[in-house]
Amino acid sequence: MLPKEKIKEILDSYDKSKVTIATICSHSSLQIFHGAKQEGFKTIGIVKEEYKKFYESFPNACPDEFIVVKDYSDFPTEELIERNSVIVPHGSFVEYINKKLDDLEIPIFGNRGSLRYERNRHRMFKWMESSKLRIPKILKPEEIDRPVVVKFPGAKGGRGYLVVNSYDEFMEKVGPDVDCLIQEFIIGVRAYIHYFFSPFNTGIGYQTKNGTIEMLSIDRRRESNADEIYRTLSIGAKGPKTRMSFTVIGNDPIVLRESLLPRFMDMGAEISDTSFDLFGGLYGPFCIETVIADDLDIFAFEISARIVAGTNLYPSGSPYSVYYYDAPMSTGRRIAKEIRTGIRLKGLDKIIY
Amino acid sequence: MLPKEKIKEILDSYDKSKVTIATICSHSSLQIFHGAKQEGFKTIGIVKEEYKKFYESFPNACPDEFIVVKDYSDFPTEELIERNSVIVPHGSFVEYINKKLDDLEIPIFGNRGSLRYERNRHRMFKWMESSKLRIPKILKPEEIDRPVVVKFPGAKGGRGYLVVNSYDEFMEKVGPDVDCLIQEFIIGVRAYIHYFFSPFNTGIGYQTKNGTIEMLSIDRRRESNADEIYRTLSIGAKGPKTRMSFTVIGNDPIVLRESLLPRFMDMGAEISDTSFDLFGGLYGPFCIETVIADDLDIFAFEISARIVAGTNLYPSGSPYSVYYYDAPMSTGRRIAKEIRTGIRLKGLDKIIY
Amino acid sequence: MLPKEKIKEILDSYDKSKVTIATICSHSSLQIFHGAKQEGFKTIGIVKEEYKKFYESFPNACPDEFIVVKDYSDFPTEELIERNSVIVPHGSFVEYINKKLDDLEIPIFGNRGSLRYERNRHRMFKWMESSKLRIPKILKPEEIDRPVVVKFPGAKGGRGYLVVNSYDEFMEKVGPDVDCLIQEFIIGVRAYIHYFFSPFNTGIGYQTKNGTIEMLSIDRRRESNADEIYRTLSIGAKGPKTRMSFTVIGNDPIVLRESLLPRFMDMGAEISDTSFDLFGGLYGPFCIETVIADDLDIFAFEISARIVAGTNLYPSGSPYSVYYYDAPMSTGRRIAKEIRTGIRLKGLDKIIY
Repeated sequence: MLPKEKIKEILDSYDKSKVTIATICSHSSLQIFHGAKQEGFKTIGIVKEEYKKFYESFPNACPDEFIVVKDYSDFPTEELIERNSVIVPHGSFVEYINKKLDDLEIPIFGNRGSLRYERNRHRMFKWMESSKLRIPKILKPEEIDRPVVVKFPGAKGGRGYLVVNSYDEFMEKVGPDVDCLIQEFIIGVRAYIHYFFSPFNTGIGYQTKNGTIEMLSIDRRRESNADEIYRTLSIGAKGPKTRMSFTVIGNDPIVLRESLLPRFMDMGAEISDTSFDLFGGLYGPFCIETVIADDLDIFAFEISARIVAGTNLYPSGSPYSVYYYDAPMSTGRRIAKEIRTGIRLKGLDKIIY
Repeated sequence: MLPKEKIKEILDSYDKSKVTIATICSHSSLQIFHGAKQEGFKTIGIVKEEYKKFYESFPNACPDEFIVVKDYSDFPTEELIERNSVIVPHGSFVEYINKKLDDLEIPIFGNRGSLRYERNRHRMFKWMESSKLRIPKILKPEEIDRPVVVKFPGAKGGRGYLVVNSYDEFMEKVGPDVDCLIQEFIIGVRAYIHYFFSPFNTGIGYQTKNGTIEMLSIDRRRESNADEIYRTLSIGAKGPKTRMSFTVIGNDPIVLRESLLPRFMDMGAEISDTSFDLFGGLYGPFCIETVIADDLDIFAFEISARIVAGTNLYPSGSPYSVYYYDAPMSTGRRIAKEIRTGIRLKGLDKIIY
Repeated sequence: MLPKEKIKEILDSYDKSKVTIATICSHSSLQIFHGAKQEGFKTIGIVKEEYKKFYESFPNACPDEFIVVKDYSDFPTEELIERNSVIVPHGSFVEYINKKLDDLEIPIFGNRGSLRYERNRHRMFKWMESSKLRIPKILKPEEIDRPVVVKFPGAKGGRGYLVVNSYDEFMEKVGPDVDCLIQEFIIGVRAYIHYFFSPFNTGIGYQTKNGTIEMLSIDRRRESNADEIYRTLSIGAKGPKTRMSFTVIGNDPIVLRESLLPRFMDMGAEISDTSFDLFGGLYGPFCIETVIADDLDIFAFEISARIVAGTNLYPSGSPYSVYYYDAPMSTGRRIAKEIRTGIRLKGLDKIIY
């Protein structure tokens, strides 16, 4: 992985009064550009020609400048450095750049080491376990005695996940010696908590060992066809068309019982604390993906070490962000605000790698 | 259908400094009045006596004047013309006025020709097909080999729709020679996209052949009992009480994956473009009603050529409207703003018929 | 029950320019503190040590002062009276204080008599019946011929409810001579309507016999596992893990068909009117919990005589509150505003008992 010193050098060369915020036009980029503009930054969109017109159509979220590319893996690092750019990484950025991300010679908001953790299921489990989060049981094929989700390596956004009920069903639908993760299928209310970690201790948020976290918003993913499959079940439909699948299509807003929130805040604090032990800390937005069972047990099944698409529900702030900020505060805007604070306190290298 | 020249005459007779916005008190009228007031218009509510007290109770959405009627089909065109009124048509207006709408001698926001298209399923399919939207397969009774929805003529808001699984079930529940539409029942996430077309090219929105479209918001309908029927299924309940029905009760908010949005924008642009080829254009708000399958295919199953009730979620703007406007922009307010622009640019006759 | 005169005496002793708003830190307290601060009140949080840090982390919703207690039933009435406090009761307050509430020597916002009604199912049915609300049928075990919910005394937030289909299933799962309520299980869209009653007739809201009501917002509860159980059903899972349960985890936003709203407003007005006949009136926020069937029949199944947690969705106002107020108006803020009005009109004793 590119040494942090290299990025610090690039940052040192930047004209701090002309820092721009850049990202790939996808995932949560409208929110990121919108928030950056609200905080007074110039914005750069890395875009394929065919999507440019779409992004140009939103006056309040259109990047001030586009860099058109044929392929996102041809990442225009030089042009971006010329423009004093900080990249805000999001889910599509992580997916498109993939392993190249480790060595990308461009300042990235947050700690790029955290994105490596997100990419690897074993590291992620280690992280969750060190943080004492309760996670759904991992089973071997022959142990399947309840509904389980079978996850294959590289499955994106829930596509390709399979649910089976028994060892026999597993053998029939998956077969022996297949590289996969078999996880207990917990039924309950899913909730995805959007946190934000800051090392600057500006007096807002929940104190952790290394700074503060804020709980900016919560969403629930809407998956096709899992979230509307009851519509065929009710008519007794059968067959391949009614097999449950988990492609993420969008997001719904939700608020949780207030009495659950202190537990969720502690979970966020733990994840933050252990991130420093494991890989030098997670900076900026992250998300814990949970299921809340009927006895109020909270199961964590994934961590995203960056802005998640569920925050797109809240470009004008959320039912939680108003408890921190008078101004409408999206996660996108919070990121820009953090970069602004980093510039002001001459601590940009703390939150950028 | 009343010639457009007749409406232009009425509009020419209007005192443009005293234009009022009027509609029937139902459907999305609170939002329409609220938006009109925000843009500085006087508002008129056409109302039945029994509902007047309800509307009077909302100071920010109460019409400035009521015209009380016994029956909405006794439409008070003369009183409205005296008040320089422009009618904003909504779903209940279209339903109550029905075919009389074609010849109603009163300026209607948008193109009344588009409301004729909405009324007729064959015309609507033609429209969707010309726009190259993918639509659920239409089947003959003997072709039923999967879940299908059976829609009868005149069914309102999903009431009376029937879902069957096979030809035998169709014959048992519907019978031979019944006038109905049999459509593949697509399972996925439903999303209703709220667009707004403007011919004025004021620099906001997505360029189409004849102007611009904006994607103001998105909702998902909540249907009784289809959207909670899983609650009886889970206990193995059977019988007529658990037959799936689709009466629209309300609406939920939703946002979609950003990577899907350019495709939805193109769908809106196509629908707009073909509306000019087919019937002189659709002006103002419209909605494409879709299902997104797990392979990310988008199916369109209906178009509404006017404001939809799902916009009632967003009287203070939506997660998308903020990318266009700094002010809280509902569809109701957007309509009023468009009438204001029409007055300013002396182009009211373009957007009113 | 403590005589109202006693509370009036305490109120008379208060320095009206220094009234504070207090509640237990749970349920909807962030919203209540946030709203009180917006209206310029000092706030007091009654809290257990372990939750203090959580509440301190929200600058816009953190109480100005904490009173730390070991047990909520050791209610610090003296300290609160010294601070000129008015308690805002919420669901957790009602649960923790329980029957002690009747005699608690501290001014409570609203009428504490209404909270007694909420606590007792028989009184509540009487209330709903006097108000001519349609309620789900109550059945005897031997009459069970459809899905029913079996509710046991003292069950909180839906925990422990049971759904059965037949007399045999009831006898198997519940048994004879068990104290429980058996209620028809109505399938439809659930909607929880948040009202606010004011006696001050300030010109906003829907006129009732004794004042006005406002319809501030609407939510839908999200219950574990009832609201995601379809995810196991679709794979044919069976066993205890898939038995439906109703633990409230959080809340979703929803808007309803505008044509249903006048009926809901009348229901709220009836509940308000009869509350005066039955127990001297319900003041401030209340909620009617309903199911809307596919033929648009509205069934009421419960009343909450205080702020409900579903209002936590709307700390910045709702799709309905904007039709009343220009400022972002949560139920928490509305309560503070009402106390402000009470002080101004020297009518605090009307709305506090």
